[in-house]
Amino acid sequence: MTVLQMQALSAKHAARILAAAGTAKKNEALNAISAAILAGQEDILSANREDLESAGQSGMSESLLDRLTLSRERIAGIAEGVRQVAALPDPIGEVTRMTTRPNGLVIGRRRVPLGVIGIIYEARPNVTVDAAVLCLKSGNAVILRGGKEAFRSNAALVRIMRDTLERSGLPRDCICFVEDTSRKSADELMGLRGYLDLLIPRGGKGLIRSVTEHARVPVIETGVGVCHVYVEKDADLQMGAEILFNAKCSRPSVCNAAETLLVDRSVAREFLPMAYEFLKGRNVELRGCITTQEILGDIVVPATAEDWDTEYGDYILSVKVVSGMDEALSFIARHGTGHSECIVTNNYLSAQRFLNEVDAAAVYVNASTRFTDGFEFGLGAEIGISTQKMHARGPMGLEELTSSKYVIYGTGQLR
Amino acid sequence: MTVLQMQALSAKHAARILAAAGTAKKNEALNAISAAILAGQEDILSANREDLESAGQSGMSESLLDRLTLSRERIAGIAEGVRQVAALPDPIGEVTRMTTRPNGLVIGRRRVPLGVIGIIYEARPNVTVDAAVLCLKSGNAVILRGGKEAFRSNAALVRIMRDTLERSGLPRDCICFVEDTSRKSADELMGLRGYLDLLIPRGGKGLIRSVTEHARVPVIETGVGVCHVYVEKDADLQMGAEILFNAKCSRPSVCNAAETLLVDRSVAREFLPMAYEFLKGRNVELRGCITTQEILGDIVVPATAEDWDTEYGDYILSVKVVSGMDEALSFIARHGTGHSECIVTNNYLSAQRFLNEVDAAAVYVNASTRFTDGFEFGLGAEIGISTQKMHARGPMGLEELTSSKYVIYGTGQLR
Repeated sequence: MTVLQMQALSAKHAARILAAAGTAKKNEALNAISAAILAGQEDILSANREDLESAGQSGMSESLLDRLTLSRERIAGIAEGVRQVAALPDPIGEVTRMTTRPNGLVIGRRRVPLGVIGIIYEARPNVTVDAAVLCLKSGNAVILRGGKEAFRSNAALVRIMRDTLERSGLPRDCICFVEDTSRKSADELMGLRGYLDLLIPRGGKGLIRSVTEHARVPVIETGVGVCHVYVEKDADLQMGAEILFNAKCSRPSVCNAAETLLVDRSVAREFLPMAYEFLKGRNVELRGCITTQEILGDIVVPATAEDWDTEYGDYILSVKVVSGMDEALSFIARHGTGHSECIVTNNYLSAQRFLNEVDAAAVYVNASTRFTDGFEFGLGAEIGISTQKMHARGPMGLEELTSSKYVIYGTGQLR
Repeated sequence: MTVLQMQALSAKHAARILAAAGTAKKNEALNAISAAILAGQEDILSANREDLESAGQSGMSESLLDRLTLSRERIAGIAEGVRQVAALPDPIGEVTRMTTRPNGLVIGRRRVPLGVIGIIYEARPNVTVDAAVLCLKSGNAVILRGGKEAFRSNAALVRIMRDTLERSGLPRDCICFVEDTSRKSADELMGLRGYLDLLIPRGGKGLIRSVTEHARVPVIETGVGVCHVYVEKDADLQMGAEILFNAKCSRPSVCNAAETLLVDRSVAREFLPMAYEFLKGRNVELRGCITTQEILGDIVVPATAEDWDTEYGDYILSVKVVSGMDEALSFIARHGTGHSECIVTNNYLSAQRFLNEVDAAAVYVNASTRFTDGFEFGLGAEIGISTQKMHARGPMGLEELTSSKYVIYGTGQLR
């Protein structure tokens, strides 16, 4: 048996105990974890400084260094997040439907934990805590496999959480941590059939593709978003420019940011210069179709076929002028990743048609794609955004980390 | 592009049109299919006779021949089943929750089809129709890949359904049929990433294992059931014997049939002879632990380690005497397949503990495991029984063939 298999077996055992723990016990542990993270911040910061030194030496980019960095404020934010999860309703045990059948059988459908959840993620140490506490609240044991850049920070956070679990009377192994941060451990996690009930990859496209293609355990695909804003002929163009700017520029690195603008030919000449007034303030690079180039001139880089399928994650926007709704819908069907899509229009029929025909996790009329998020949707928490259709689609909160079982009360019924 | 990829692309196109079709149109097509199956019964029976001849020549077993055989009565049953699916509520379009957020965004969660569903199945031709019409009703295109034994029967049924779709104004390719019944086509289906939204294997353990291990598309694991009946110390023993007999003998070949009896030591001496009185009428072979052998003597075959993990699908029952609830729960956790588990008891605490702690799709108190079935559970229809935890668990009806999308109505909200 490998180290990872032994850990997974311990996690499985811990999951059985956790599944039977009541809400009060879980919340007590969560609040204790929140307090312990605050109390242990010196240790966490010192571990984080070591991570930052190594990362600096290996020449990590500014933006990645920023994501890796912890501070007193960020730790306070993490601790507050844990308290908020404690305050959320417990999904476990809810009976979502219950009927009495003609033969007298009483059949209920009860929400239960999935069991053991594996999470493979990259640089940010806050994911370590977010993922662990969401799993804990939903009654699942978790196996955390973070990136090597944040190894010391993650290890410090996990140590605090495991110690606190034990003091709260829950098994330490409700939260397991993979110490091997090499490719090998990720590959092994993907193959842990019979141990892992779910594996969630969080991170770049390469990681997600590798996991979805090679995993032998159930996976939820998250977060690749080539999102479109479609400014239709009957749009309020001012609103269109504001939504586009917000969708592209409020945080370009995230998956719900817009990558492509589609605009109706009949309003393109008026709209594109308006949009550019917003975008130029952030030096957004425009990569446009021929008509876009004609309208905006030299500021537009000619778009290649590849652009339409690229998640830039940066201040770059591809722009395509379309003949109308039909072309916009086909374009989105072909190039969208099923994440978030937006139409700006004041035409009722166009709005309804877009909502009906676009096949994506979140379809917007007159609002920024940036709202696709568990907190914004009112789920209270989020472990990722599913871009698949099975099990969960869109932002995943606590309910999406559960399964169900039928409980049947009989009095001797035979079939 | 292979033939199968082209079919899948046609199915994908058909699925987009079907997703936008209303309930009335789908029901009209379903009722027309029902009528067309009745009207075409001569063609179906003649195709079935050819299948039966080939199967007879190749030495197929009696029970498989029976499953392959169609008759006027069976065809009438199939047609009636289609009418019943037409009469079920349409799951598509239902908004399962809708809220207005503090910023005025109105966010609804709407039920939508999955897209294209592949089904790999074995001998029974009725599955061809069941699967096709459940997918049609839930707005999904389907790719059917049946076994070679039923090829001509399946082809005749599919021809009738596709012709009827066309007459009803829906694309023929809502129902696609794989003509290649070799291993190769099954392998290719498993690899159709980007085309198939779901693949459901229906059939023996070998098929299901092969699909779950090799598929590169989302899969729902169905139907392997090593189900236990646990007769607890406070059981009504007469009821226990009746439930055990029903669970084992009413239809031993199906996945919700019991394979193992667990009985508390304190009642074993009284219960086992009572149970045997029932079971001997069907010549059920008993494979028992040492205590079972001591109590029932020579009629018991000594059980091997393998027996506890075997789905016999036959008139064979493994029997284990346990020291009490703890041992019963551990035994089920170790050897159960998460399908259906039953306790017979009049003890309130034991019943509750069993319901809480057994991790299976369906957990019963005082009723036969044979009830795990979409019709018996009131779902109106069934495409299989999921033994996994993700997406669907237990009997899968129309709702389980759907996904969701968030539809968001804004008035210019920015984040």
